[in-house]
Amino acid sequence: METYSIHMRIGELSKRTGVPVPTIKYYLREGLLPSGELTSHNQAQYGEEHLRRLKLIRALTEAGKLSVAAAREVLTAVDRPADGLHAVLGVAQQAVTPQVTPVDTAEWARAERQVDELVARHGWQVTAENPARSALAQLVVTLRELEQDDLLELLDDYAAAAGRLATAELAAIARREGVAGKVEGAVVGTVLGDALIAGLRRLAQEDASHRIFEAR
Amino acid sequence: METYSIHMRIGELSKRTGVPVPTIKYYLREGLLPSGELTSHNQAQYGEEHLRRLKLIRALTEAGKLSVAAAREVLTAVDRPADGLHAVLGVAQQAVTPQVTPVDTAEWARAERQVDELVARHGWQVTAENPARSALAQLVVTLRELEQDDLLELLDDYAAAAGRLATAELAAIARREGVAGKVEGAVVGTVLGDALIAGLRRLAQEDASHRIFEAR
Repeated sequence: METYSIHMRIGELSKRTGVPVPTIKYYLREGLLPSGELTSHNQAQYGEEHLRRLKLIRALTEAGKLSVAAAREVLTAVDRPADGLHAVLGVAQQAVTPQVTPVDTAEWARAERQVDELVARHGWQVTAENPARSALAQLVVTLRELEQDDLLELLDDYAAAAGRLATAELAAIARREGVAGKVEGAVVGTVLGDALIAGLRRLAQEDASHRIFEAR
Repeated sequence: METYSIHMRIGELSKRTGVPVPTIKYYLREGLLPSGELTSHNQAQYGEEHLRRLKLIRALTEAGKLSVAAAREVLTAVDRPADGLHAVLGVAQQAVTPQVTPVDTAEWARAERQVDELVARHGWQVTAENPARSALAQLVVTLRELEQDDLLELLDDYAAAAGRLATAELAAIARREGVAGKVEGAVVGTVLGDALIAGLRRLAQEDASHRIFEAR
């Protein structure tokens, strides 16, 4: 980590991040990027923290595919580390989890019960407000409608894997020094972790498909 | 599985699936849903296979968040089971994996090498065309830019978990009778599996965060 501070115009900020100047101005207007320090009535200069924030914005919106509105929510939480890591992680989860509205049917009630039982079996402490509950209930309803009950039998294996990975990830973040780095790690891990696992799953699937369907 | 065949008008098809009639007509025009059997010059009737296909379309586009164009590609592959399961799975993967264009930088080359080494370490047989290679390289570049190298150290744990889950999933599909069911399972598993794992990860994260950051 370089400790000297740098000062640059918006053009230099653009050059060093590959983000076009009009896009940087848009992020400034939308409040995702804090204003620079005014050096004259129409010029501002930017520092190391702007460079870092701009990279984080790109990570959330490009690799993480968040909308600008969702990225702003996450960044607002990042800027309030005093709320505690657990709270910041909650906001990041809300921003990246699809909001699903429960449906008043017997199938839905049965799926919700199945998710609750799974949570209990794995001994997870999870609040009723976690948006993933409804997202999972919807997936269970869909898989059952499609008569894919054998895939639902894999849920516990998937949950055990998710549990191990979440623990390893948060333990790595807990080892970091400083609150800012921990908060950033929690956010980045949540948002980019999904894409990382999906990508690895594609590679592993091709290999498994080759072994199971092709090579015999 | 009911073996008697059913016949219904488009209105009944709509009622039984919750999909509005104009949306069904759109799917018919776009070739996602095969035409019904004409019973007069402006009336058609639909059967069990339409009901099933319509549910699959909804699963891909709603729970799986595929575009109509991506869903059509997947369904075209589903309708060519003679190509073999391995090929159908490849098409499903293409449709659900973000297409990332490699960049000609030293950082990108280093990230691609890291992905290749990971694939070799896990003994995976993966073609150079698998779109997840570039998607993963982009994530590695992003994580390194954000100085999240400690999260990159978890990649092998994530890969091992992805390998176990992919093997369990494809083994379950291989146990099914009939090609059509296997093909549908491969597609549904690929598309909905990501959302399933993401949802379980959210629940496990809240629990791990509670244990690691709150409760001590």
